[in-house]
Amino acid sequence: MSSKTNPGNFFEDFQIGQVIEHAVPRTVTEGDRAVYGSLYPTRFAIPSSAVFAAASGLAVHPVEELIAFHIAFGKTVPDVSLNAVANLGYAELRFHQPVVPGDTLSTKSEVIGLKQNSNGKSGVVYVRSTATNQRGETALEWVRWVMVHKRDTELPAPETVLPELAKVVAVEDLVIPAGLDFAAYDFALAGEPFRYDDYAVGEKIDHVDGVTLTESEHQQATRLWQNTAKVHFNKEARPDGRNLIYGGHVISMARALSFNGLANAQMISAINGGSHVAPAFAGTTVYAWSEVLDKAEISDTVGALRLRLVATSGRDESMTLRTDEGKYADGVLLDLDYWVFIPR
Amino acid sequence: MSSKTNPGNFFEDFQIGQVIEHAVPRTVTEGDRAVYGSLYPTRFAIPSSAVFAAASGLAVHPVEELIAFHIAFGKTVPDVSLNAVANLGYAELRFHQPVVPGDTLSTKSEVIGLKQNSNGKSGVVYVRSTATNQRGETALEWVRWVMVHKRDTELPAPETVLPELAKVVAVEDLVIPAGLDFAAYDFALAGEPFRYDDYAVGEKIDHVDGVTLTESEHQQATRLWQNTAKVHFNKEARPDGRNLIYGGHVISMARALSFNGLANAQMISAINGGSHVAPAFAGTTVYAWSEVLDKAEISDTVGALRLRLVATSGRDESMTLRTDEGKYADGVLLDLDYWVFIPR
Amino acid sequence: MSSKTNPGNFFEDFQIGQVIEHAVPRTVTEGDRAVYGSLYPTRFAIPSSAVFAAASGLAVHPVEELIAFHIAFGKTVPDVSLNAVANLGYAELRFHQPVVPGDTLSTKSEVIGLKQNSNGKSGVVYVRSTATNQRGETALEWVRWVMVHKRDTELPAPETVLPELAKVVAVEDLVIPAGLDFAAYDFALAGEPFRYDDYAVGEKIDHVDGVTLTESEHQQATRLWQNTAKVHFNKEARPDGRNLIYGGHVISMARALSFNGLANAQMISAINGGSHVAPAFAGTTVYAWSEVLDKAEISDTVGALRLRLVATSGRDESMTLRTDEGKYADGVLLDLDYWVFIPR
Repeated sequence: MSSKTNPGNFFEDFQIGQVIEHAVPRTVTEGDRAVYGSLYPTRFAIPSSAVFAAASGLAVHPVEELIAFHIAFGKTVPDVSLNAVANLGYAELRFHQPVVPGDTLSTKSEVIGLKQNSNGKSGVVYVRSTATNQRGETALEWVRWVMVHKRDTELPAPETVLPELAKVVAVEDLVIPAGLDFAAYDFALAGEPFRYDDYAVGEKIDHVDGVTLTESEHQQATRLWQNTAKVHFNKEARPDGRNLIYGGHVISMARALSFNGLANAQMISAINGGSHVAPAFAGTTVYAWSEVLDKAEISDTVGALRLRLVATSGRDESMTLRTDEGKYADGVLLDLDYWVFIPR
Repeated sequence: MSSKTNPGNFFEDFQIGQVIEHAVPRTVTEGDRAVYGSLYPTRFAIPSSAVFAAASGLAVHPVEELIAFHIAFGKTVPDVSLNAVANLGYAELRFHQPVVPGDTLSTKSEVIGLKQNSNGKSGVVYVRSTATNQRGETALEWVRWVMVHKRDTELPAPETVLPELAKVVAVEDLVIPAGLDFAAYDFALAGEPFRYDDYAVGEKIDHVDGVTLTESEHQQATRLWQNTAKVHFNKEARPDGRNLIYGGHVISMARALSFNGLANAQMISAINGGSHVAPAFAGTTVYAWSEVLDKAEISDTVGALRLRLVATSGRDESMTLRTDEGKYADGVLLDLDYWVFIPR
Repeated sequence: MSSKTNPGNFFEDFQIGQVIEHAVPRTVTEGDRAVYGSLYPTRFAIPSSAVFAAASGLAVHPVEELIAFHIAFGKTVPDVSLNAVANLGYAELRFHQPVVPGDTLSTKSEVIGLKQNSNGKSGVVYVRSTATNQRGETALEWVRWVMVHKRDTELPAPETVLPELAKVVAVEDLVIPAGLDFAAYDFALAGEPFRYDDYAVGEKIDHVDGVTLTESEHQQATRLWQNTAKVHFNKEARPDGRNLIYGGHVISMARALSFNGLANAQMISAINGGSHVAPAFAGTTVYAWSEVLDKAEISDTVGALRLRLVATSGRDESMTLRTDEGKYADGVLLDLDYWVFIPR
C-alpha cells in the first residue's frame, strides 16, 4: 500500500508568501481551437480567421483568450481547490499577450491572503496566479479566492491577511496586444456594424440565443483544460448523483452567446471580477445578456468596453441582475465583469 | 436597452440581385479533421492519410469535402435561414478545389429567386452561394432554396423569379483537383477492390452499418461549422422540447457509412440535389444505402460516379426510396444526389 | 443489388501464415492530441508539453502511446474482429518509437495461431500485428487473439497451432526512445516527486478519482480510431439496446486516472498482457488502481516499472483483483500488465 496520490491542500497547508509551482505544462494547439469551437458557439472573427487576425495586426493567429484562461486556471485546481467548498471570486485578471498554437503554458501561484471562517472548519485562501509561456513571458495573471476545508479543525487560525484588490483593472493597466490595429477592420466580415461609439454606458443587450447544456460537452471542455475537480466528472462524488458543471464552461458559453450583439468585442483584455452565482447542470438552457459598464479609448483604432456578462438559466428578457432586496435574481448563473477590445 | 442582435432576414428583406457578404471567415485546421473524425465513422483514404493523398497527386492534404461544405454553408445561416421554415433543396454544388488546413473560407450569396407562398405568410428564397479562400479563389459554390417567414404579412408579394437550375451538374462542369491521378492507387490500403468499372448504373448498395445519434455529437458538429440555427441547440426553442438535428449531420453520417461498399468513392465533386426528407433526433439510428445513377470517365485514371445517397432511420434492406404513390418511404431521412471521383 | 460491403472474416477465412494488409492509413495530427485530451483526464507531462518532451531529449513532441495503439489497433478490426465473439487477450506489445503528429500509420497482421472451439461453431485466431509509419519503420507491434464465429459450422477444423508467447516482454526487448534522458527531469512540473526508487515491487496504489462514462464520449473516441465494430455505435446491434464500450476506452481512462500516484510513469513501452474482464456501459463510473509487478534499470536516468493497471466499476479501496476462488472480483473491468518508463 502506498500514499502517493494527491489529497490536495487543506486550509492549514497554505501560508502567506508561499509559492506553488503547478503541474503540468501544457502546449496549446490548433486542436484546442477546433475542440473549443465544437463546444461553444463562438464566432469572433479574430480567433475564427487567421486572415482576419493578420489584418488586425497580429503576427500569429491567437486562440480565444478563454482557452488560455481555462488552461492556466486548470493547473491550479489540484493544488488550490481540490478541497474547495466554493470558488468565491476573481479579480485583477489581465491578459499580457495573446496565446497562440505552439505556446506552452505553466502556472505559478502565490498565497496572498488567508482568513479562517468563524466556524473553524474552513477558511478563505487568496492566490495570485501567473501563467507563463515557453519564453518565460507572462501570458496572463489573476487573483482568485476559494473557501477550503481544514483537515484538522483543532489547529489554531492563522493571522488574517486580506489582500487589497482592485475592484476594476485600471485602463492604464490593460495590455494592448503587440501590433493590434483595427484601422482595416471589416465590419461585414466580423458580423455586425457596431463599433466603440455605438455602445453607451448603461446599455443592456439581450443576446437572445440559448444553449441546452449536455453532460458530455461540459466534461470534454473541463478535461481539455486538465481540470481535475471530481465534482465535474464523477456522479458518485456528489450526494445528488449529478455532475456539477465547471463554472468556466458557463463563462465560455455566455461569452460565445454574446457574439449576437457584441460581435466586435474581439479580445478579452481583463476580468475585473466574477461570481458563479448558482450551479449549472446538464439540461440547463443557458442564455446571456450584457451591460456596458464603462468605456475607454485605447489607441486611434482600438477602444475598450467594460462589460457585465450575465448568464442565466432560461431567458430573462427583463435582464434583471438583482431583486429589490439586493440578492441575485432567480436564474442568474454567472455575473462576470470584464474589459474587451473593440474597434473605434 | 438596445437592439443590436441579429433578428435574421425575413422574406421581404430579400431582393433579386442582392449580394450578402456573410460573416465570419473561418480558418480550417487539422483540428477540424480530428473532430470530424470523432463525430463520423469516416475512413476514406485521401482525407485519412497525407501519404495516400500525396500518392494521389495532391500537393497538400485536403480535409473531407463535407467539412468545407458545412463551414461554407454555416456562414449563410444567420443571413439566409435564421427565420426559415424549411430548407427545401440544393442544386449545382461544385467543389472547385480541395480545401486544406490553413485555408480561410468566406462565403457570399446572391439572391437569384423569390416566390411568395399563396398563403402570404412566407416565401421561397433562392440563393447562389460562393465560398472563397484567402487567395480569393472559389473553393465551392452551390444554390439552395429555403422557405422563409414574412415579418409583415401585409406587404405585397414581390415579382416571382424562378432561377433555371441544372437538375444535374454536367460532367464537363466537374472540376478535377489539380494533380489528381489514381495511377498509383493502392486498393488494399483504401479498403476495397472495387473500381469505376465495377459499378453499374442502377446498382444499389446497402451500407449495412448503423449509428445511433446522440445529443452531444450533433451539437458539436453543428457548432464546429458555426451554424447558429437555434433549433439545433436550444430545447426551449421547439414546442416538443427536442433538438432538431442539423441536416448536414445526417449527410456526413450517411457519407461516412457509405464507405462500406464505396470505399474508393474518394472525393465528392458535386452535389446535384438533395432533400432532407424527415427530421432526425437524438436516438435515431441512421443507416444508408446508395444507388449508382450515372457514370463518366474523367481522365485516364479517374472516373466519376453519380450516386444517390439515402439515409434512413432504421435499416431498410429493401432500399425503397418511394412508395407506390410516389411519396418517400417511411424512414427515409435524406435523399442526396452527388458526383464523386473514383479510380478507373 | 450488389455485395460490395465487407462481411468481415470468419474463422475459416484465416490460415496460418496469412498476411493481411489493413486499410486505411491514418495520419496523426495535433487534433488527435486535443480530442484525446477532451475525452480522457490525461496529464502526463511529456505528451502534455512540447517543452517538457524536448527537455526529456525527444526530438519531436510525441502523442500518448495509447493514441498510436488505438489507431493501429482500429485498422485490424474490419479484417480480424468484425465477427468476433470476444477479444481474448494481448501479448508482446512493444512501442518501437514514439508517434508524432505528421506520422502516417498503417497496420499489417499475420495469422500465427488457430484453434477451433470444441463446439465447432467458433475458434480462436491469433494475429501478430505491426504498425509502420510513412518511412516504413515499425512504430509498434503486438499479438492479440480473438474468438471468431465460423460462417459454415460444417467445415472441418484446421490443424491447431498455438503460438508461443512471452508472458512478459523481456527488459532487453524494451525499446528506449531515441534521445530519452531524464537527467533534467522537473518533478514539480510533472506533478509528483516520486521516482523509480520510490516504487517497490508489490506496492499498490489506489488512484482515487473516478469518471462516469457517457455515451457520446466513448463513441467519439472509438470513431477517432476508425474502429468499426458495430456494437459500440448501434443500439440496434445488441439485444439489450445498449452500446458496448470499446475496451480501449477503458484502458485509456484507467491510464489517465493513474496519473494520480503515477504522474512520472511517462511513456508506455510495452503491454505484456491484458484482459477486458467485464463490459462497460454509459453510466459506469470507472476507477483505477495499480500494482508494481517488477522494476528494471534502463539507463542512467531511465527506469522501467512493470505495472498492473486495474480498472473497476465503482471504487475498490481494498484493491482486490481476484476472489478466493481465483475469479476476478466483482467490479473489475480491466486487468492490464504493462511496462512504463520513469525517471530514476
